[in-house]
Amino acid sequence: MATAPSVSYSITVRLEVPASGTAVSQLTTAVESSGGSVTGLDVTASGHETLRIDVTVAASSTAHADEIVSKLRGIEGVAVSKVSDRTFLMHLGGKIEMQSKHPIRNRDDLSMIYTPGVARVCMAIAENPEDARRLTIKRNSVAVVTDGSAVLGLGNIGPKAALPVMEGKAALFKRFAGIDAWPLCLDTQDSDQIVEIVKAIAPGFAGINLEDISAPRCFEIEARLREALDIPVFHDDQHGTAIVVLAALTNALRVVGKQIGDVRVVMSGAGAAGTAILKLLLAAGVKHAVVADIHGVVHCDRDDLVHASPESALRWIADNTNPEGVSGTLKEAVTGADVFIGVSAPNVLDGTDVARMAEGAIVFALANPDPEVDPGVARETAAVVATGRSDFPNQINNVLVFPGVFRGLLDAQSRTVNTEMMLAAARALAGVVGDGELNANYIIPSVFNDKVAGAVADAVREAAKAQGPAVAAAAATPGTV
Amino acid sequence: MATAPSVSYSITVRLEVPASGTAVSQLTTAVESSGGSVTGLDVTASGHETLRIDVTVAASSTAHADEIVSKLRGIEGVAVSKVSDRTFLMHLGGKIEMQSKHPIRNRDDLSMIYTPGVARVCMAIAENPEDARRLTIKRNSVAVVTDGSAVLGLGNIGPKAALPVMEGKAALFKRFAGIDAWPLCLDTQDSDQIVEIVKAIAPGFAGINLEDISAPRCFEIEARLREALDIPVFHDDQHGTAIVVLAALTNALRVVGKQIGDVRVVMSGAGAAGTAILKLLLAAGVKHAVVADIHGVVHCDRDDLVHASPESALRWIADNTNPEGVSGTLKEAVTGADVFIGVSAPNVLDGTDVARMAEGAIVFALANPDPEVDPGVARETAAVVATGRSDFPNQINNVLVFPGVFRGLLDAQSRTVNTEMMLAAARALAGVVGDGELNANYIIPSVFNDKVAGAVADAVREAAKAQGPAVAAAAATPGTV
Repeated sequence: MATAPSVSYSITVRLEVPASGTAVSQLTTAVESSGGSVTGLDVTASGHETLRIDVTVAASSTAHADEIVSKLRGIEGVAVSKVSDRTFLMHLGGKIEMQSKHPIRNRDDLSMIYTPGVARVCMAIAENPEDARRLTIKRNSVAVVTDGSAVLGLGNIGPKAALPVMEGKAALFKRFAGIDAWPLCLDTQDSDQIVEIVKAIAPGFAGINLEDISAPRCFEIEARLREALDIPVFHDDQHGTAIVVLAALTNALRVVGKQIGDVRVVMSGAGAAGTAILKLLLAAGVKHAVVADIHGVVHCDRDDLVHASPESALRWIADNTNPEGVSGTLKEAVTGADVFIGVSAPNVLDGTDVARMAEGAIVFALANPDPEVDPGVARETAAVVATGRSDFPNQINNVLVFPGVFRGLLDAQSRTVNTEMMLAAARALAGVVGDGELNANYIIPSVFNDKVAGAVADAVREAAKAQGPAVAAAAATPGTV
Repeated sequence: MATAPSVSYSITVRLEVPASGTAVSQLTTAVESSGGSVTGLDVTASGHETLRIDVTVAASSTAHADEIVSKLRGIEGVAVSKVSDRTFLMHLGGKIEMQSKHPIRNRDDLSMIYTPGVARVCMAIAENPEDARRLTIKRNSVAVVTDGSAVLGLGNIGPKAALPVMEGKAALFKRFAGIDAWPLCLDTQDSDQIVEIVKAIAPGFAGINLEDISAPRCFEIEARLREALDIPVFHDDQHGTAIVVLAALTNALRVVGKQIGDVRVVMSGAGAAGTAILKLLLAAGVKHAVVADIHGVVHCDRDDLVHASPESALRWIADNTNPEGVSGTLKEAVTGADVFIGVSAPNVLDGTDVARMAEGAIVFALANPDPEVDPGVARETAAVVATGRSDFPNQINNVLVFPGVFRGLLDAQSRTVNTEMMLAAARALAGVVGDGELNANYIIPSVFNDKVAGAVADAVREAAKAQGPAVAAAAATPGTV
């Protein structure tokens, strides 16, 4: 599958070009003949002899960008003076910052924001610790915590290399839900230490977003933190993904006119995302689910599972899926299936596999950047196809979920996040697509649809409040100050 | 010592006042006869019968504010409908927030800030971890870390109640030095845990500002973190205070025409601040120092010190001060002293004690809010008096120091902070007061003097760079992006 030119591989090339002759007109041709796309061309200085031109080009990879630069350099009379990478420029010095909400202009401001005035605010909280949610940043702050062990599809790249992702996440929290998130990239991959650290930093935050922590450690870390803390702990790779998949599946079933309790679902992938998706689908009413991992279909009698710990995630899957005890390969399992959900690896299925699925088949091939099956090929026989990619219809993207979920949790001052709230979030997200809009190429709204975060937040907030004061404090005024 | 009305005890009282008659004119009189000060009076709604008036009043304490409200309520025809506390209003919802540096308007922005573009930035850092200082927030970020064990003068009020101070500190970091600081209030007071936690969160920060951690734990925590980390660790209560005291002393000695190597310095207080001040003064050339704590003058033969651990801070003081082995009380020790520095408790000295000091005496009475000696009384015989209070001349305030120190450390990409850099900071701060400006009532600049942070930052940056690449990376471009 060829990758289209993308701004995420966008470069700006500064060229010195002869003012006369045909060089200028050759620039765009050179880029386009190399498969790139010119997205901007600015003459930044002009003289009698030469022009200085900044050409911005979308390429499809770093190597492709290099190739385009060579082609430009090959034009008679053209000199390349500088190549800037737009993505790197955007990350230079980091993508987020801290701001004071109030100006500090004079002694009076200082004496209220800091000493001596701040002392009275501290004493009010010391007397009534719940006031921290009223008088500090706690109420609107979320820690984005990673150990860098499973960053995007890049693997265990460590805390420093994970930071650009966590900053981006924090920026998205603000953009879509007005939440103040700060990244904490931990220099340890010891589960006990991570639990201890997150417990210790919790007083200043109203929620914890765990991010890019590898399975199966992420299950234990999350479970222990949920048990220990009085603020919600949400592992986005698990639950954010599960919520958006359930929302998309809800709408895909509307398109093909099937009921969730009737369909046979086959999943590929039993990692963090796969396990969380499965659990949420079962909670939402799926009765027939089969999961395959790299060793084939998961069932209770599989060699590696007969003696597996009853605590293990894979054992849980074996005990809670595949009631018929089907064995064999993924390719065998998808025959006749209504729904395929892949959170695993590229190209584990081909067109003939999809063609053997039931009438009105739904295919969610979410491996990134290369899906489990080519979506164009799948679409030849499947009724609905979704991927994780932005260059196909129906992008399954966590950005649709986590901002609204946390907004709702924070507004309810929720002490936890549970399955009821996640189901409510999925229903709300699915509901953003109206009956008049719904079709096979539009089962899920765009991340820039401005109804999404509010709808998800409202649903989560009401679900939290409905569970009473043990779950959510009676928040007088939802929303940020 | 009566406290003057202050905006840090400022309230806004909303009143319904008869439109006719003398009630309006009685408002200011009522406030002033109670010892308050009217700082604003706004008619916010006007009708035929009544006016709605918001009166903003500076009081000197919470009780005093209540008293003023009663007085207003007592005026014929006046009804109090609401009392707002300006300081609390300023803290509502917290005082700082997180902002994205770039707009996220569309798919292109998203694909550069987040996936898929961010992956290339992550991989660049994975290949060269030093690039984290270039491509992430690390380079300009400082963690403000406390365990809430010694907050201001309020004592061990815990992490949630400490948060308003840490937010204020973060706001000051930005206001005075453009630094992005985020508060981490830890729910543990175990030194081992604190060390482990700060080590773990370090990858995302270029500096650690420890704050309001009680002595003697703060000494051990700081020492272990400095040993372990490749970013500077600075306990502001110790070193910030020490630097500003040394700067003030430098200028006070200029005023009285004495040399630092000649003066006899008596200190009251052997806690975190006292110990740090002492060490920096010795490094700066003080040769005659005597320290007193609550048990009197510290000397090697004092009962509690004969068997003290050689590691203890008090033992270090005994071994490094008071070469004559003077014993006795603080009051005895100040007789004939050139310099008194108090970082201890209110009213440990009186005017007669100060009168017994040497000619040209320098008194720094820094206990807050009530100094070791009434500064007005001290000034009757001492040549130079300074306090920690904003309502007397010569306020010794850490805000003069920590923003510039960290700016310099961050710009040098310094891996540590050491005595050389602190001495440089103190020299630079003292140097902001020119010969033509210097006098007994102006030994230290105002916190709003806009030369301060830059002068301190320049000095620290150059001191760090002068110590070579083991201490500071060669930062190509000082300053924030």
